Order: sequence, then structure tokens, then C-alpha cells
Amino acid sequence: MLSRMQTHYLTRVMRLAVREGVRLFNGRDGEWQAQIQAVGRGGCVLRIGGCLRAQLAEPGPWLGFAPLKKDAQDTLIAQATELGVEKMIPVHTRFTSVGRVNRPRLLAQAIESSEQCGRLNVPEVAAPCFLQNLLSEWPASRPLLFADERGFGRPIAEAANGQPLDACSEPPGLLIGPEGGFADEEVREILAHPCVAAVALGPRILRAETAAVAALACWQALRGDWRRIDHPGSHDVRTES
Amino acid sequence: MLSRMQTHYLTRVMRLAVREGVRLFNGRDGEWQAQIQAVGRGGCVLRIGGCLRAQLAEPGPWLGFAPLKKDAQDTLIAQATELGVEKMIPVHTRFTSVGRVNRPRLLAQAIESSEQCGRLNVPEVAAPCFLQNLLSEWPASRPLLFADERGFGRPIAEAANGQPLDACSEPPGLLIGPEGGFADEEVREILAHPCVAAVALGPRILRAETAAVAALACWQALRGDWRRIDHPGSHDVRTES
Repeated sequence: MLSRMQTHYLTRVMRLAVREGVRLFNGRDGEWQAQIQAVGRGGCVLRIGGCLRAQLAEPGPWLGFAPLKKDAQDTLIAQATELGVEKMIPVHTRFTSVGRVNRPRLLAQAIESSEQCGRLNVPEVAAPCFLQNLLSEWPASRPLLFADERGFGRPIAEAANGQPLDACSEPPGLLIGPEGGFADEEVREILAHPCVAAVALGPRILRAETAAVAALACWQALRGDWRRIDHPGSHDVRTES
Repeated sequence: MLSRMQTHYLTRVMRLAVREGVRLFNGRDGEWQAQIQAVGRGGCVLRIGGCLRAQLAEPGPWLGFAPLKKDAQDTLIAQATELGVEKMIPVHTRFTSVGRVNRPRLLAQAIESSEQCGRLNVPEVAAPCFLQNLLSEWPASRPLLFADERGFGRPIAEAANGQPLDACSEPPGLLIGPEGGFADEEVREILAHPCVAAVALGPRILRAETAAVAALACWQALRGDWRRIDHPGSHDVRTES
């Protein structure tokens, strides 16, 4: 039984009808074929068929970002999800202009994008934290690529091959600043962290959401799961159980 | 003298006042320092100072894309501009769902993004064309990377180093399909073109705007102007003369 929202998505947005097929995932049990059996006002009933894909561990990069305005943040969440981000962390900084983070909204956007892009899991949306806490609690096994908007970092294609990425066992986190940039003392704290490598994303000034998607794409292409040949799936629906 | 729209942008959006500095560019004469002298209802007067940056030729990748819905297309134009695209070509395909292309709107978005990201030129927005014309008129000096959403292309990091890119003298064009993908016979026509290389952008299905920005970022990082170290400018305003 799917919820009202999921039913709306399948029957109104995707325009699927009774007897049409969908693919299900819940982030634990892989991907399953299913068929729409009945559609009612409060939901729809599916018949579950065979397993299509086993659930594989899909370690991906993390993304720390300063909260953005609504449209820019929707774009960021959607694109980061499509690019295989494993965890997204809203980070409050000195110049963050958006105060409140609507975490359920971010998660809903991440679920919708996961369904559309054929992921079998949904990225975690972490509770918002302050930059200082992000840095003090950052796991030593994971490098942190800091998108230095002053342009002082190493070109990302160069930084993606070498230290500290080679010394760490996990995919990196990416740290993208707010519209106003990081404050000077924040930059000093970031650069003093042992896991951090500053990277440069070219000679133009990128908005936060462009920097995030660009850096994620480069990392996936150079070190992540874009290096293997694989064929995308389609039209997955995430179920709760 | 700046236009009413430019004055609105400087004084309302950027909140600059008389005696504050801006940087000017027109795509031909480099970047110039200027100071706001007076602000009126119909425009504002600037005093031009010294030259800050010489105009350099900035050859960049081209982007062929199927017209998208308004918000997605705004995102695409803004992000492609920030990523240094030289020319954007709306391409009508069999499954293109958006009929009319508002070219002045695309150009306005490209100008605004050029100003914000510190470019000294504005990408060209070409007249919309049909896929068949794009292919028949494609210059032989420029490779065309086709983002094959079926996943049959070479991983982009691999394709960015090798043929046909190495044999061509110009940066590549990228060709991104519509939401519904290309029709089978369109794919055949694309792949039969001598300049074309099919590239894969990982195991997930990307929306058109994500595919475009991801592919542009990868190319800039691997073969384009992200490889040199440079420091971004800020707050440029494009002038007409």
C-alpha cells in the first residue's frame, strides 16, 4: 500500500495506471518489480514481483553546505542526490544568510530525486550544525575538500589524485561556503584542520549550488562510480518497509 | 550612463551607492574600474577609471540542449555560463516537450550570470535549430560529446583524454537530450557523425540540467581553464559600448 503522496506522484505526475509496472526500493532490500493493482483516493495497492537489483553498499561523497534560499537549495539537493551524495550537512557559518533549515523539506526533495535518478538509497540529511562542530567532529578517515572561493586551492582534477585523498579510506566530504563566502577566521580554522585540502574550481565565481554540483561531478568522474560502465534504471519508488 | 535595468541591479540588488566602485566589461575592451557618480530614476552615471584586465580570447565549450521548462532552463543557462560555456544552442528533437524558446530571456539570464561570475564576455545564445541541422552544420574542428543517457558511452574522464578530442583544435560541444531522451533514430544519426564521441555520466539518471553542468565541469577540470591557477574577480557589469 502506497501513501497518498506516493500515489499522487505515480498516477498524476508519472501518469501510471492499473496494471502498469513500477520498481520499488527502501534502501535496504534492493530493487523489486511491482505492478499497480488498484488505485483509491487514499493510496494505491501494489503487487510485488521479483527482485531486480540487490542492495549494494554505495559509499558516496558527503556535502557540507551553508543553507541557501529555497529555489537554490532545491536545485542543490536534487543535483547532489543525482550525483550520488551519501550525506548532506547544512552548516551554519558567519555569513550564512538563511537562518532556518526545513529538514523535512530537504529530505522530501532527496527522496523524490532518488526515485527519479534510479538510486536504491536516499542520501541522509543531517541536522544543521555550526562550522566549528562540523570540523571538530569530522571523521579522520574522510578527507574534506574545501572549495576555496578565493581561488587559492589546487585545481580539483589535480587534488582528486593525491594527498590527502589517497591516505583516507572513505570518499571525501565537500565543503561549500555561503553566498557571502567564509569569514577570514573561518578559512583559517578550515585550513588548520588535518583532513582538509583546499581546491579551486576555475577562474570564475560560482554560486554555491553550481560549485557543489561541479565538485561532486568532478570527484565522481575521477575517483567515484562514474569510472565503471553501468546502465541507469528508471522510475523507482521508495517504500517505507 | 547605465540603463534603468542595470541601475536597478546595481542600486537595489547589489545595494551600491554613489561613490562606490564597480567593474565594467563589454566583451571587447577588457575590464575597467568605475565609480558611481550619480543615480537617477532612469539610470546612473559612472566615471570610468583604469583598465583592470585585458580582454583575452576565452574559447570555451559549446552546449547543445533540448529546450527545458522555465526554472530548469534558467538553472541550465546560469550554471553553463558560470562554467565558461562559449555558445549555447537550443536544439529541437523528436521528444522535446517545450516548443517555444524565449531567446531574449535566455540572453538576459546569460548576461546576469556573466556579471555575477566575473566573466569578461557573455556566451552566445544561438537561434534554435533542429537536431538534423545541428549535425549537418557542425564544424569539423570541434568534437561533439554526446551525453548518452542509455549509459553506453565511455566514462567522461576517460573520453576527455583521447580521440576525437585530441585530434580537434577547438574545445568540444556537449549535446544533452530532452527529458524523454533521444529517439532511437536520432541516436543513430548522432553516433554516425564523424565528430561525435558518446560519453557516460555515471550509473544514475541525470536530469538534463544536471547532465549539462556535470559534463561542463568535468571538461573544464580535465581539459579546460580550471587547470590553471587564477583568482576570481567580482561584481562586473556589462556595458553596451
